[in-house]
Amino acid sequence: MPFAPLQNDCFLRACLRQATDYTPVWLMRQAGRYLPEYRASRAQAGSFMGLATHPDYATEVTLQPLERYALDAAILFSDILTVPDAMGLGLSFAQGEGPKFEKTVRTEADVAALAVPDLEKLRYVFDAVTSIRRALAGRVPLIGFSGSPWTLACYMVEGGGSDDYRAVKTLMYRRPDLMHRILAINADAVAAYLNAQIEAGAQAVMVFDSWGGVLADGNFQSFSLAYTHRVLEQLKPTHEGAPIPRIVFTKGGGLWLDEMKALDCNVLGLDWTVNLGRARAQVGEGQNGKALQGNIDPNVLFAEPAQIDAEVARVLHSFGPPHRGPGWGATHIFNLGHGISQHTPPEHVAALVDAVHAHSRRLRTAA
Amino acid sequence: MPFAPLQNDCFLRACLRQATDYTPVWLMRQAGRYLPEYRASRAQAGSFMGLATHPDYATEVTLQPLERYALDAAILFSDILTVPDAMGLGLSFAQGEGPKFEKTVRTEADVAALAVPDLEKLRYVFDAVTSIRRALAGRVPLIGFSGSPWTLACYMVEGGGSDDYRAVKTLMYRRPDLMHRILAINADAVAAYLNAQIEAGAQAVMVFDSWGGVLADGNFQSFSLAYTHRVLEQLKPTHEGAPIPRIVFTKGGGLWLDEMKALDCNVLGLDWTVNLGRARAQVGEGQNGKALQGNIDPNVLFAEPAQIDAEVARVLHSFGPPHRGPGWGATHIFNLGHGISQHTPPEHVAALVDAVHAHSRRLRTAA
Repeated sequence: MPFAPLQNDCFLRACLRQATDYTPVWLMRQAGRYLPEYRASRAQAGSFMGLATHPDYATEVTLQPLERYALDAAILFSDILTVPDAMGLGLSFAQGEGPKFEKTVRTEADVAALAVPDLEKLRYVFDAVTSIRRALAGRVPLIGFSGSPWTLACYMVEGGGSDDYRAVKTLMYRRPDLMHRILAINADAVAAYLNAQIEAGAQAVMVFDSWGGVLADGNFQSFSLAYTHRVLEQLKPTHEGAPIPRIVFTKGGGLWLDEMKALDCNVLGLDWTVNLGRARAQVGEGQNGKALQGNIDPNVLFAEPAQIDAEVARVLHSFGPPHRGPGWGATHIFNLGHGISQHTPPEHVAALVDAVHAHSRRLRTAA
Repeated sequence: MPFAPLQNDCFLRACLRQATDYTPVWLMRQAGRYLPEYRASRAQAGSFMGLATHPDYATEVTLQPLERYALDAAILFSDILTVPDAMGLGLSFAQGEGPKFEKTVRTEADVAALAVPDLEKLRYVFDAVTSIRRALAGRVPLIGFSGSPWTLACYMVEGGGSDDYRAVKTLMYRRPDLMHRILAINADAVAAYLNAQIEAGAQAVMVFDSWGGVLADGNFQSFSLAYTHRVLEQLKPTHEGAPIPRIVFTKGGGLWLDEMKALDCNVLGLDWTVNLGRARAQVGEGQNGKALQGNIDPNVLFAEPAQIDAEVARVLHSFGPPHRGPGWGATHIFNLGHGISQHTPPEHVAALVDAVHAHSRRLRTAA
C-alpha cells in the first residue's frame, strides 16, 4: 500500500533550495518531555526506550507536537544511540540521567570485536518509521536521523555523556589507528541504518554531529567531517523517484562552514552562535550552496510570547530576504540551535511557530 | 622596597608583539590539582578557598609549577568568583563539586541590592599578588586575572555551574534591563579589581570570558563583549612606567574574532577549535593586530610524550613563521585552549613545555 500523497511540501522544498510561501519550521526534540502528553505516554511505556522500541508508542509521541503546533515536518522519535546499542554495548537511560552503556570501547580487543550490526536488531526503528509515515497520512514529511560516526564514538568510548571527553580524546591522541577503525565501522553502520530508514519511509535524513564541536581544528576534519562524508557518499540519493534531502548538524561547528560546504548534503544545521546572514554569504548562495537550518537559542522559549516573537523576527531578518524563485536560491528552515528544553512552557512553542509563519510570510510580500 | 628586575621578559614582549627568541608558554590553571605538591598544600589549607585567601599558601602554590617546568609566566592563584563573593553572595566549594553561591541574583530586589564591592574585602587577593611578585624575584612576570562581567553574571544568576544556562538566559531574554544592570556593576567591579591587582604588582592582566561562547550571535556582542570593553576602558594602561598588557580569552569565541579585534587589549586567547593561521590572518597582523594566545587541546597531555611533541609542533606550525623584528609583528604565546585537567600526568607537562621551547627556537633559526 503506497503512502498518502504529501500535503505540505514546504520543508522539503526549502531543503532543495526551492522557493516557499513561508519559512518552514520544526524543532529538534519536538516530541519530548516538555509536553504533558509525552510524559503520560512515557509513564505508560515505562521508559524512554520503551517508547522508542515500540512502534505504536513511537508513532503516538512523534505525532503529539503536530496536534498542538503548525509544524512543517515530523521527526522520527528515537535516540541517536540505537546503533551502538545494536552493536551490543547495552544502552540504558537511568531515571533523570543521561544515556549509559554497559560496555565501553577502549582497547584493541574492544575495537576488534566491533562490527556493523545486523540491521534486524534495529527493525523496531524501521517499523516505527513506516508506522509514523502511515499515521502522518501526508500531513508533513517525516525526517529520519542518526548520530554522526564521531558523536557515536564519543558515547561508545566514554560509556555515556562527558564534560571533558577525556576518554575518547585520549584514545584519539594515543591510538588514532583504533579511533579511525571505530569511525569507519560507525560510518558504514550509520549509512546502512539511514538507508533502511529511507526504505521504510523517511523523506529526509539528518546526521546529528552533536559533539563535533569539541574537537580541535584539524581533528574535526579528520575524525568527524571525513566520516560524515563517508556516510553521505553511501546514502541513497532518491527513493521511489523522490529526492531524499540530507541535513548535517554540527553543534559548535560554525568555524568550519567552509569545509562543510563540500559535504554532499542539502542542508547545514547551525547553532545560535552562528550569524545566519554571514553563513548564508559563506555557504548559502550559488550552485553548490546549502540550505540553512536553525538557529534560535532554545532558551528564548523562556521569555514572554511578545519577546519570543521579536527574537523570531530577529533570526528571520538575520537570514535576510527570502528566495522567491523560480529555480534554486538561498533558503532557510527555521529551527532551534539545539534540542528544546524539557522545562519549556508548551504555549510558548505555539508563539514561536506562529511567529515564524507570520513574519516569514510578511517578509515575502514586503520584499 | 621595589620588586626585583625581570629576568625573563619573553612573555611580556610577545604580549606587546615584539620579537622573541622562542615562543613563550604558560598554562591556564598551571597551579592545580594535577600536581601532588598542590594537593598536599590544599590538604594543609583545608580547602580551595583556604589556599586562595591566605597569601602564603597562594604564593606557595603559584610557584609550584615553576619549580618543575620552564614556564615563561606565573599566574595569580585565585578564583574568578572572588568578586561576586565580595559582593556578599557567599562562595563555597563543596568537595568534588564546582563552586556554589549561597545567594543568587534573579529578582529586581536582588539586582537593586547589588553594588561594586568594597575592595578591602578582596585585600587577600592583592596581598597574594604582592607576596607572589616578591617570591618570584623577577624570574618570570606575574599575570593577574578576573572573570568577565558576563561570566560572573552566569554564576551569580545560576548560583553555580550550569549545563544549559537556563536561569541566566531566562533573565537576559525576559529582563534585559536587569541583566544590563548586573553587567554594568560587574564591569566596574572587575575594572577596579584588576587595577588594584596591577597596583599590587601584576605585570599583565587577563579577563576570562569562560562562558561568552554560550551566547547567541548578537547577544554575545551586547551582553558579553560590550562589558569586556567597559572593563578595558577603565584599566590602567601602565604602572610605574611599564605597560600592562591585557589578555581577553573567550572560550568558544572563535566566530567573533573580527569583533574582538576592536577591543582595547593586546592579546586574544583562543581555544583549540580555532585555526591559528586563520586567526593570525584575521586579527594578528597590522598596526591594530593582537598577539594570539593558545590553543592546544588539554587532552593532548594524555598522549605519550612523543605524540605531545608532534602536536606542539603542529600548533606552532599552524601559527606560522614567527615575527623576527625589529618593530612589532604577529606573535604567539603558547598555552592550552582551556585549563589543564586535574588528571594530567605531571611529566607530560614537561614534555609540552620543552617541546614548545625547542621547536619554536628551531622555527626561528630555520626561517
